[in-house]
Amino acid sequence: MHDILIEEGVLAKNDGIAGENREMLRGRGIYSINMVSSPGSGKTSIIEKTAGLLDGLLRLAVIEGDIETDLDAERIRRHGVPAKQITTGRACHLDAHHVHHALPWLFEQDGIRLLIIENVGNMVCPAEYDLGEEMKVAVMSVAEGDDKPLKYPALFSASQALIINKTDLLPYTDFNMHRARENALRINPELKVFETSCTKGTGLQEWCGFLLSSAGAAAKAPVK
Amino acid sequence: MHDILIEEGVLAKNDGIAGENREMLRGRGIYSINMVSSPGSGKTSIIEKTAGLLDGLLRLAVIEGDIETDLDAERIRRHGVPAKQITTGRACHLDAHHVHHALPWLFEQDGIRLLIIENVGNMVCPAEYDLGEEMKVAVMSVAEGDDKPLKYPALFSASQALIINKTDLLPYTDFNMHRARENALRINPELKVFETSCTKGTGLQEWCGFLLSSAGAAAKAPVK
Repeated sequence: MHDILIEEGVLAKNDGIAGENREMLRGRGIYSINMVSSPGSGKTSIIEKTAGLLDGLLRLAVIEGDIETDLDAERIRRHGVPAKQITTGRACHLDAHHVHHALPWLFEQDGIRLLIIENVGNMVCPAEYDLGEEMKVAVMSVAEGDDKPLKYPALFSASQALIINKTDLLPYTDFNMHRARENALRINPELKVFETSCTKGTGLQEWCGFLLSSAGAAAKAPVK
Repeated sequence: MHDILIEEGVLAKNDGIAGENREMLRGRGIYSINMVSSPGSGKTSIIEKTAGLLDGLLRLAVIEGDIETDLDAERIRRHGVPAKQITTGRACHLDAHHVHHALPWLFEQDGIRLLIIENVGNMVCPAEYDLGEEMKVAVMSVAEGDDKPLKYPALFSASQALIINKTDLLPYTDFNMHRARENALRINPELKVFETSCTKGTGLQEWCGFLLSSAGAAAKAPVK
């Protein structure tokens, strides 16, 4: 009980900063998403492919959250995309304060219209922390099993989109796509579900189309 | 800073209860391990296979940690193994208190010599919580990528053994086993590394042999 009280205080403080982040990002016309998954589901590969497909259409920047190392930011920068690494040390998720500190860096980059935040690989804790993004995107890989939405419902109910990645591994696993979709939609009937393979290049155009139209719709919406 | 101070208080309290758990388990001659990994690395399948191989040799019981659902405990019980489900709700890891509450149930089971605790699927937070186990076992799947030990070092340095699972997927991924082992051993040179596939049944005898000999050595060690 005591732990939960502490946590609620932490979350309330986080939500306040997240609100500021959102306002600052909107004020500069930057659409932002927060990608959350287990380690190794392929978030970084999806961002690399997204950067390739959006090249020339929408300038993007990436904030990379990791416990240690800047391997992921290095991978992103190779595509000519500005990337800021945040190493969280012992913290198992990004919080709004981490992102807040990266905003001055972001606003120095030229003409950014899309911010992709890649959270620490963790299917549990990041689900609870609003970073100020417009959309949370859950990612899971076929190798993780089709029961994950039932076992980690908080992420799936907090997300607007779900990317089921590594579909190239489908023939070699007992992952049932129909059941996975059913499990995910049972938790959150509004989820947009995308099936992708970064090695085969499938499903990524659909995902990028959705991302572009979401960013476009947000840009046209009246400022609240 | 404030968050870390709170956390240290929580960890100190946890460690005290973990010490009690360890003493109670040792007192009853029960060897215990704590399996930690991302969601979907195959912990439950490994436990199922382990139960099959140890059948008739060493009676075991399982404590299953999950945010929601008792799917995993159900899977284990089908093998005739006593299993207790702990659903943690919002908590992203098991703590010593959770396990403490399950000990009366455990001590009611007949002739148990081995307790396997399957932690919540999370590569980050469970690494910090001693549950009172004798050995922490990290599990990662080939589908997660060979860079995981570098990105989540706390788990690998806290573990005595590492199971690299789903080796049947090796031909379909760019996972480099040599690099994975190198990365893991750079973090923790003492790690015992096992390569397993639950679908092909490979590597599991080695793992079970190690588990049996660890439990045997502990049983012969003078009580501290």
